[in-house]
Amino acid sequence: MKSLNIGMIGYGFMGRAHANAFRKVSNFFALDRQPVLKAVCGRDATKAKEFAAQWGFDSIETDWRKLIERDDIDVIDIAAPNDMHAPIAIAAAKAGKMILCEKPLAMNAAEALKMVAAVEKAQVPNMVWYNYRRVPAVTLAKQLIDEGRLGRIFHYRAKFLQDWTISKDLPQGGAGLWRLDAKVAGSGVTGDLLAHCIDTALWLNGPMDKVTATTETFIKQRQHTLTGKVESVGIDDASLFLARFANGSLATFESTRYARGHKALYTFEINGENASISWDLHDLHRLQFYDYRDEGRVRGWRSIHVTDAEHPYMDKWWVPGLQIGYEHSFVHQAADFIQGLASGTPTAPTFRDGLATDYVTDAVLKSAKTGRWETVKK
Amino acid sequence: MKSLNIGMIGYGFMGRAHANAFRKVSNFFALDRQPVLKAVCGRDATKAKEFAAQWGFDSIETDWRKLIERDDIDVIDIAAPNDMHAPIAIAAAKAGKMILCEKPLAMNAAEALKMVAAVEKAQVPNMVWYNYRRVPAVTLAKQLIDEGRLGRIFHYRAKFLQDWTISKDLPQGGAGLWRLDAKVAGSGVTGDLLAHCIDTALWLNGPMDKVTATTETFIKQRQHTLTGKVESVGIDDASLFLARFANGSLATFESTRYARGHKALYTFEINGENASISWDLHDLHRLQFYDYRDEGRVRGWRSIHVTDAEHPYMDKWWVPGLQIGYEHSFVHQAADFIQGLASGTPTAPTFRDGLATDYVTDAVLKSAKTGRWETVKK
Amino acid sequence: MKSLNIGMIGYGFMGRAHANAFRKVSNFFALDRQPVLKAVCGRDATKAKEFAAQWGFDSIETDWRKLIERDDIDVIDIAAPNDMHAPIAIAAAKAGKMILCEKPLAMNAAEALKMVAAVEKAQVPNMVWYNYRRVPAVTLAKQLIDEGRLGRIFHYRAKFLQDWTISKDLPQGGAGLWRLDAKVAGSGVTGDLLAHCIDTALWLNGPMDKVTATTETFIKQRQHTLTGKVESVGIDDASLFLARFANGSLATFESTRYARGHKALYTFEINGENASISWDLHDLHRLQFYDYRDEGRVRGWRSIHVTDAEHPYMDKWWVPGLQIGYEHSFVHQAADFIQGLASGTPTAPTFRDGLATDYVTDAVLKSAKTGRWETVKK
Amino acid sequence: MKSLNIGMIGYGFMGRAHANAFRKVSNFFALDRQPVLKAVCGRDATKAKEFAAQWGFDSIETDWRKLIERDDIDVIDIAAPNDMHAPIAIAAAKAGKMILCEKPLAMNAAEALKMVAAVEKAQVPNMVWYNYRRVPAVTLAKQLIDEGRLGRIFHYRAKFLQDWTISKDLPQGGAGLWRLDAKVAGSGVTGDLLAHCIDTALWLNGPMDKVTATTETFIKQRQHTLTGKVESVGIDDASLFLARFANGSLATFESTRYARGHKALYTFEINGENASISWDLHDLHRLQFYDYRDEGRVRGWRSIHVTDAEHPYMDKWWVPGLQIGYEHSFVHQAADFIQGLASGTPTAPTFRDGLATDYVTDAVLKSAKTGRWETVKK
Repeated sequence: MKSLNIGMIGYGFMGRAHANAFRKVSNFFALDRQPVLKAVCGRDATKAKEFAAQWGFDSIETDWRKLIERDDIDVIDIAAPNDMHAPIAIAAAKAGKMILCEKPLAMNAAEALKMVAAVEKAQVPNMVWYNYRRVPAVTLAKQLIDEGRLGRIFHYRAKFLQDWTISKDLPQGGAGLWRLDAKVAGSGVTGDLLAHCIDTALWLNGPMDKVTATTETFIKQRQHTLTGKVESVGIDDASLFLARFANGSLATFESTRYARGHKALYTFEINGENASISWDLHDLHRLQFYDYRDEGRVRGWRSIHVTDAEHPYMDKWWVPGLQIGYEHSFVHQAADFIQGLASGTPTAPTFRDGLATDYVTDAVLKSAKTGRWETVKK
Repeated sequence: MKSLNIGMIGYGFMGRAHANAFRKVSNFFALDRQPVLKAVCGRDATKAKEFAAQWGFDSIETDWRKLIERDDIDVIDIAAPNDMHAPIAIAAAKAGKMILCEKPLAMNAAEALKMVAAVEKAQVPNMVWYNYRRVPAVTLAKQLIDEGRLGRIFHYRAKFLQDWTISKDLPQGGAGLWRLDAKVAGSGVTGDLLAHCIDTALWLNGPMDKVTATTETFIKQRQHTLTGKVESVGIDDASLFLARFANGSLATFESTRYARGHKALYTFEINGENASISWDLHDLHRLQFYDYRDEGRVRGWRSIHVTDAEHPYMDKWWVPGLQIGYEHSFVHQAADFIQGLASGTPTAPTFRDGLATDYVTDAVLKSAKTGRWETVKK
Repeated sequence: MKSLNIGMIGYGFMGRAHANAFRKVSNFFALDRQPVLKAVCGRDATKAKEFAAQWGFDSIETDWRKLIERDDIDVIDIAAPNDMHAPIAIAAAKAGKMILCEKPLAMNAAEALKMVAAVEKAQVPNMVWYNYRRVPAVTLAKQLIDEGRLGRIFHYRAKFLQDWTISKDLPQGGAGLWRLDAKVAGSGVTGDLLAHCIDTALWLNGPMDKVTATTETFIKQRQHTLTGKVESVGIDDASLFLARFANGSLATFESTRYARGHKALYTFEINGENASISWDLHDLHRLQFYDYRDEGRVRGWRSIHVTDAEHPYMDKWWVPGLQIGYEHSFVHQAADFIQGLASGTPTAPTFRDGLATDYVTDAVLKSAKTGRWETVKK
Repeated sequence: MKSLNIGMIGYGFMGRAHANAFRKVSNFFALDRQPVLKAVCGRDATKAKEFAAQWGFDSIETDWRKLIERDDIDVIDIAAPNDMHAPIAIAAAKAGKMILCEKPLAMNAAEALKMVAAVEKAQVPNMVWYNYRRVPAVTLAKQLIDEGRLGRIFHYRAKFLQDWTISKDLPQGGAGLWRLDAKVAGSGVTGDLLAHCIDTALWLNGPMDKVTATTETFIKQRQHTLTGKVESVGIDDASLFLARFANGSLATFESTRYARGHKALYTFEINGENASISWDLHDLHRLQFYDYRDEGRVRGWRSIHVTDAEHPYMDKWWVPGLQIGYEHSFVHQAADFIQGLASGTPTAPTFRDGLATDYVTDAVLKSAKTGRWETVKK
C-alpha cells in the first residue's frame, strides 16, 4: 500500500489529537494509502524528540521551513498556534504540499483569504480540522437535514461554554496558554470556541446574512508567562451574538470561558417546521430528535444513542451501545481526507470553508465594537 | 346537581389527599354528582375539628361506628391505618355504604378476602386508592399496552425506593409513624411500597404465577412512640423478589426505605418484542417509550411529556407543557369513581383487585421465610 | 375568620388558574383571611354562569364597571386580555380596591406607568401574577443567590420556547386566540413569554442596562376569528435579544412559538464565579445546582428534587419526592399576597415591578426596529 | 525500551479491542516495556493475514499450540471463544508465558479452578479482561467506596440489558454468533453479561454469600450456522437473581438480550448509609453521586462528568469535558498490567478473581434449576 507521509508542526493538545488520528485510522478504515508519521516539527528539539518517541514519528525538525522543503513529506499538518497558520500554509502551498490546518484557519479573514488564494493557486488538497462535523451524531444530524426532514427552518441556537479561565491567577501566553494571548490567538473565545459553532452552523443551516454581537473581557489583566509582566488581556472572554441566516431562520450564539460548571458544553439545536434536532458535546454520542410527524400521543424527543452500524462511521467500531470518544472525530476526518484523495474529491471543510467561518467571526468582532448589525461577507 | 356525601375516616397524609380530591374534582371534571365533605372522623376531637375547618367538612365524628350509622353519608372513605381497614369496611358494607379504602386493602389476604366477601354480598360500590394508575403517563402506558403495541412481553421490572427511615433515632408507632409498627401496618415496605408496584404490574402485565423473595430489617430495634420503650422492629425495611407472570415474562421487584438519595423513586419498565415503556414517579409526567418499528437510524427512547390534551385526563387541566402534581392522581380516581356510579360500572381497582395484590404480598412474605418459590393465589 | 372577597374578571385559562388558587389556598396555608369567590365577570352571561357554577363563585357580572362598584368586593382580580388591564386597574384603583393583574402588566410601559400611578395614588395593595417566582425550585434559586453563593455573576440566559402556532391554518383573535391579535395582546411572544423570562431575570439578577434585539413574524397573514377575514399578523412570533445587566453580566434571551418539540420550555441559567444554577419549566420541581466549592473529584451538577419540607413552600404539601403542579405557583402567590396584607408588606411583584419588565419589553421591541442597542428605562 | 511481545489468539470483536489497546497504550502512558504485536493466531490463515495487516502484527499462526511454543512471545492473550480459554491457558502456563484471558475465565468454575492452579503453579502473571473496572467513572466509584464515603451498605443492584437476539431468524453458532451456542459459550447471558456485573460487584461490594435465580430461553430453537440444522437453544436468554452479600447488603441482578430499546445498558447502583453511587455504560463517563452529608436544601444527585485530570486515568487523555470511548478501558487495563510487571504486583482481576465470578455464575445457574437459594463457593 502506498504511504502518505505526514509532517506535523506542533505537539500540543492538537498535535496529539492529529498524531493519534493518523496512527489509528488504518486499523479501522479501509484506505488505499497508509499514513506514515514521518516527522514532527517543534522549536524545542528535546520535546520534539520525546514526542516523536512517544508517537512513533520517524524524525524531527525544529524549523518548519526545513520540514516543508523535505521531499519525503506529502502532507504538512499544522497544529501550531493560530499566528503560525498563514505563513506555514502559504509556504507549504508554494512547495506543493497537501495542507491540513487546525482551526480557526487564520487570525482573521484577510489572512485566511491569502491562504485560500495560495492553496487554490497551487491546487493542493487542503482541509481545516473542524473535527466536530465528524462526530457520528453530528454527521447524522447533517444527513437528516439534507434529507429534508426538518422542513422550513425557524431557529438555530448554539453555545460553547467552558469555565477554565475564571481564576485571576491564571497567566496568559506560553505553552498551553497561548489561547489567552491575543497576539498569538487572534481572538479569544470567538476564534477558539464560536468558530466551531459557526462552522457547524454554516454546514447544517447554510450561509449567515448578518449578526449583532457583544463581547467581554472579564479579567482585564493577567501576568504574561513569557514576559513575566502583568499585561492587559486582549482576548474576549465571552462572545454572544444574534444572527439571521439566508434561509430566514433566527439564531443565538454564545461562547464563554466563564460558565461555571461547564467544561466543554458545545450544544446546538435546530428547529424546523416538521422536526427538531439537538446535540451536546458532553454526551456526544446522543442525538436528540423530535419528529412532529410521529403520532401525537407518543410524540416526544427521541434520545438516539448513535452507536449502531447504520449510523455514520459506526460500522467501523465496536457493537451497538458502545460509544467512542472525542478523538475519534479526528480519525474520521483523516479517513475522509485520505478517501477523498483517492476519489479526487476535496474533503470539506476546505480552506475556503474555513474562510467562511472567519468572515463570520470578523463580523462578530466588528459588531461588538460598532454596536450595530454587521453584514457577513461571502 | 345531586350530592355525594363523603364521610372520611382518618386525617393524616392520605386524609388530606382524599379531601383535596373531593374538593377539587368538580372544578375540573363534569360530574353528575357533587361530592360534599360531610364529615371527617378521628379519635382526637380537637384535631378533627381543626382538619374539618381547614378542609371545609361540615361535621366531625370521633367514633367511626357512628359515622357509618349516619343516614346523610353516602360514601365511607377509609384513610385510617391498615389495621382499621377491615373492621370499618365490613361494618360499612353491612350498613350499605359505598366504600373507598386506602391501600393496601388489608393486613393480609385472609382479611382482604373477608372485605371482598362483605362488599360483594352487600353489592356496594367499592374501590381501593391505588392512585398511581391515574397518573396520566401511567394511564397512557396502559393504553399503549392494551393497543398491543409492545407485542410479546419478555420483562417487567419495578422498584419503589425511599430513604426516610435510615436513622436509628427514628421511633416507631404513633401518628405519622404507624407505618413502622408491624401491628398496625401489617408489614413494612411490602404492603406500603411494593403493593403499589404490584397493583400497577397486575394491571399492566396480567397475573403473576410465582415469586421468590427476600426481606430484611436493617434496624432491629426502635423506640416505640406510644409505649416509650425500645422494642423489636417487626416490619420489613426492604423487600425484593423475582417473579414469573402468566404471560411468560420475568420480573424483578424491589422496595426499600434504605436507598439513600431516593425520596420516592417508583419506577417500572416493561420490555416487549416490539416496544418498551418506562416511567418514574420522580418525573411523573414523562413516559419513556421506545418503538422498534421506528426507522432504524432515528430510533431512540422518546421522552413523552404527557401534558397534551390528547393524553389521558389532560384535556381537563392547563395547556401543553404545564404539568400537574402527584395529588391529581387522586382527583382523577375520584372523577372516575363518580362517573362509574353514573354508568353503573365498577371502578377499578375494586376490593377484588386489591385482594389480588394482597395475594402477591402474602406470597412474597411467605417466600422470604421459606426461601422457596411460592405460588401466588388467584 | 375574616373573608377576602374576590371579584375576578375573565374566565379563560388564567381565570381558571386564579380561581383554583383562591379556592385551594386555605386548605394548605394558614391564613387570617379566607378568600371567597364572590363574583366572576365576563361579557357572556351564559358562560359566566357556567364558570361560576363550576368554580363556586357566588354571583356573576357582565360589566366590569359594575363589579368594581360593588361594596362586597375587596379584590379585583384581572384575568382579562391585555388590552383591558389598564382601564380596569385604573378604575379599580379609583374605587379603592386591591388589585391583582395578570401579566404583562400592560400593552406597553406608557400604559403601565399610568397603572402604577393609579395604585400608588390610591395606596391600594397591588400585584402582578408573574407566577413563576413561586415555583419552589425558582424560589430556592432566589434564596441561593441572595445568600451570595454564586459570587460575581458572569452570565444569564433564558428561553421560553413553544410550538403551538406553527400551523398556517391557525386563525388569530377571539376566545383563546387573542394572544395572536396584536390589537388585544400588545405584542406577541415578547409580552407573553419573554415577559416571564424578564421578570424572573430582574428578580434574580438585578436591573438590565441595555439590549439589542430582533423579532420575526414567520406567518404574515392569518384569518381573524372575529372578522372572518385574512388579515396581517401584527404580533412577533419570535423575539431574541442580547442584554447587559447592571452587575456586569451578559445575557441571551429568546422566545418563540416556532420551536418544534417544545411545549413550554421556559429555562434559565445563571453562571457565577463560584456556582451556577439552572431550571426548566418542563421539569419544574428540579433545580440544577453546581457548586465549584465542592471537592474536585466529586464535583458535578446536582439535580435537586425540590420536594423536601425544607424547600420553599413544600412543607405545606405532601411528602418528599412527591411533586406538585404548575398551578401551585398561583396558590403560593395567593398565600403570599394574603399574608402580606396581614403584615402590611407589599407582595412582589407589585405593579411597579411589572412596569420594570414592561420597560425592558419596550426596549426590546424598539431595538428590533432600530437595529441598535437600546437603553432600558428604569 | 524493552519490548513485550504479544501473541494473541482470536481476531473477533475482542481481538480488535485487545490489539487496539496494545497498539495505543504507549502513546498515552509512560511504560517501561513497549508492547509489540508479534503474532496473531486464528484457524483461517487468510483472515489472520488480513487482520495482521490491518493491525500491524508481525506474523500469524493458525495453531495456537505453535504460538505457545514460540520463544519470541512473552504474553499469550486469549481472545478466542470461551471453550478455548482453559486448554490454551493451561498450556500457556506450562510454557511459562504470561497470560491474559478474555472473560468469563472459563466455561464453569471447575474449569476455571484448573486454570488458576496452572498459573499459580507456573507463577506467571495472569489477568482476566474484565475491562469495565477501568472505565474512569467506575474506577472513581471504587475510590469513593474505598475511602469509606458510603458507610454501611444496604443495597446493590445491577443490570446488563441488550436486545440484539430478539429475532427468531437469528441463527446460533459460528463466527460472531458463538455466544448463542451453549457448547462454545458455556452459558448465555449469565457468563456473557452477568459475569461483568458480578466482577464489578465483587470488586466494589465484596464477596457474595448466596443467590436465588431464574433463567429463561425465550426462543427455544434456532438454526445452527455450522450444521445448517434447526437445533435446541442451550443458552439462557435472560438470567435474574437476588443476592445477599457478606457485608449484609441485598442485591438484584438481571441480564437479558430481550430488553427492547437497550443496546448495552450495563448499570449498577450502590446505596450506603451516607452516600449512593450509580453508573450506566450508555453514558460511561458520567458517575452519579449522592452525598447525604451535603447541606439539605441543596442536596441532590451529582452528575460527575469524569473527564478532569484529577479523575482516574484522565490526565493521560485530552482536556476536561472531552470524553473517551469504551475501548479505552482496555487501554487502561493494558497500562496497568505492564506497570504491574514493573512493580511485581499482580494486576487485578487475576485468574483467581475471575474464578470468584465463575463461582457466582455457577451458583446462579444451579439455583435456576433447583429453585432454591444456593451458597456461593469461595
